[in-house]
Amino acid sequence: MPKPLILVSNDDGITSKGIRVLIEAMCQIGEVIVVAPDSPQSGMGHAITIGNTLRLIETDIFNDLGVIAYKCSGTPADCVKLAKHYVLKDRVPDLVVSGVNHGSNLAISVLYSGTMSAAIEGAIEGFPSIGYSLADFSLKADFSHAIDHIVHIAKEVLEKGLAKNVALNVNIPPKQNQKIRGIKVCRQAKAHWQEEFDQRKDPYGRPYFWLAGNFVNNDKGEDTDVWAVDHNYVSVVPCQYDMTAYHSIAQINDDWDFMTNV
Amino acid sequence: MPKPLILVSNDDGITSKGIRVLIEAMCQIGEVIVVAPDSPQSGMGHAITIGNTLRLIETDIFNDLGVIAYKCSGTPADCVKLAKHYVLKDRVPDLVVSGVNHGSNLAISVLYSGTMSAAIEGAIEGFPSIGYSLADFSLKADFSHAIDHIVHIAKEVLEKGLAKNVALNVNIPPKQNQKIRGIKVCRQAKAHWQEEFDQRKDPYGRPYFWLAGNFVNNDKGEDTDVWAVDHNYVSVVPCQYDMTAYHSIAQINDDWDFMTNV
Repeated sequence: MPKPLILVSNDDGITSKGIRVLIEAMCQIGEVIVVAPDSPQSGMGHAITIGNTLRLIETDIFNDLGVIAYKCSGTPADCVKLAKHYVLKDRVPDLVVSGVNHGSNLAISVLYSGTMSAAIEGAIEGFPSIGYSLADFSLKADFSHAIDHIVHIAKEVLEKGLAKNVALNVNIPPKQNQKIRGIKVCRQAKAHWQEEFDQRKDPYGRPYFWLAGNFVNNDKGEDTDVWAVDHNYVSVVPCQYDMTAYHSIAQINDDWDFMTNV
Repeated sequence: MPKPLILVSNDDGITSKGIRVLIEAMCQIGEVIVVAPDSPQSGMGHAITIGNTLRLIETDIFNDLGVIAYKCSGTPADCVKLAKHYVLKDRVPDLVVSGVNHGSNLAISVLYSGTMSAAIEGAIEGFPSIGYSLADFSLKADFSHAIDHIVHIAKEVLEKGLAKNVALNVNIPPKQNQKIRGIKVCRQAKAHWQEEFDQRKDPYGRPYFWLAGNFVNNDKGEDTDVWAVDHNYVSVVPCQYDMTAYHSIAQINDDWDFMTNV
């Protein structure tokens, strides 16, 4: 049986530690091809490049692993699209994985996350897809405790498949003294970022801002991704991309005045 | 009674025709404050600026309308965050509107849309929010047939409110000989973009790509946004931002091997 074909991308850029960890893990189970951003793309959400051109250049950065890799000037979603249409052409990946992100992508962060946009783009294209994040923002984060879980989840997806149009958002607790307690399939917590803007002056006296803030979780549920990672479990949230608030449709139809003589 | 306070943003940039149309429309019903990108941000999805600084500069571009406006170097989501925390400070907007986008944001385009990211960011912040798009990509698009509908929908939202965490995605058909037939509350169509990459050579002989493609709708439902706009109705899709695929949770729990001795 041929080895499964695994496409790897990320949002921290092709030179980040996290993508090398993920590539090494995926090499245990399949043939790996990498198309990843040539620079950090954190917070890019599901951005795509439509008003500008894209570059895609083959790189030997993962030659030591025997892996073909391309760096792309675009966003994580661009990388998956270019991989499908230009790099893979007629080959169909058995799995698309993104990450490992340096930092968690819990709760509403899935909206802002470039890591998850690559995975969701994979799901849109019809491929089983997983975004992996480690809840440690350090550039030199220790991923060693995560690797077996990353491989295990990828194998489960390859073997059992995923529902159509679903991508997994996997978050792994930071390395701690205690071993990871297991895997929990969760819902996205109803938590949010409480922003602050740090206003500064540039050397010419003009103001500029840094977006900063704290993650606030008022969701006390024990079935959420935030709860799982806080309690040293790997969280797995299946994500879909139909944004329709179905519960609202009837309410609006009931409430609104639809007079059409406007 | 004081006039409602309405925050206006967009993704085509503060000098686009569409945002002036929206500001003029909102001036009919409230006090308007504008915080919008200083350059086009189409396709930015829910991107935010976290690895870089932000500029926010007051501009007199809408002085003729008596409207205070700021241009921002960031994304649409950044604009709404900066508006809340820095421009409005203790004032709470009664409504956040974004657009009018030059071009439709139907079906899955809501994921890629900067217009909708401003509206969804408004909903995240707890404000009733609407993204407006005109299904005409021309920079000089005729918005005249849209204005009464834009005002009508904003008034309904101001009067009736919206469910918590819901933003409206409103798409208006292009100007046609026939008058718009009315408003339909819809679900997001299961349609997608079929991409192609147009590969070219730069003057130095190096390859680059343009993302291009066609919108493909295999969803035959008559309750979708695509159907509505195709049949000359204004489509209104209530959107939420919990991406959890709830139907998948039980399935994964049933199917997977959760052995934890990895």
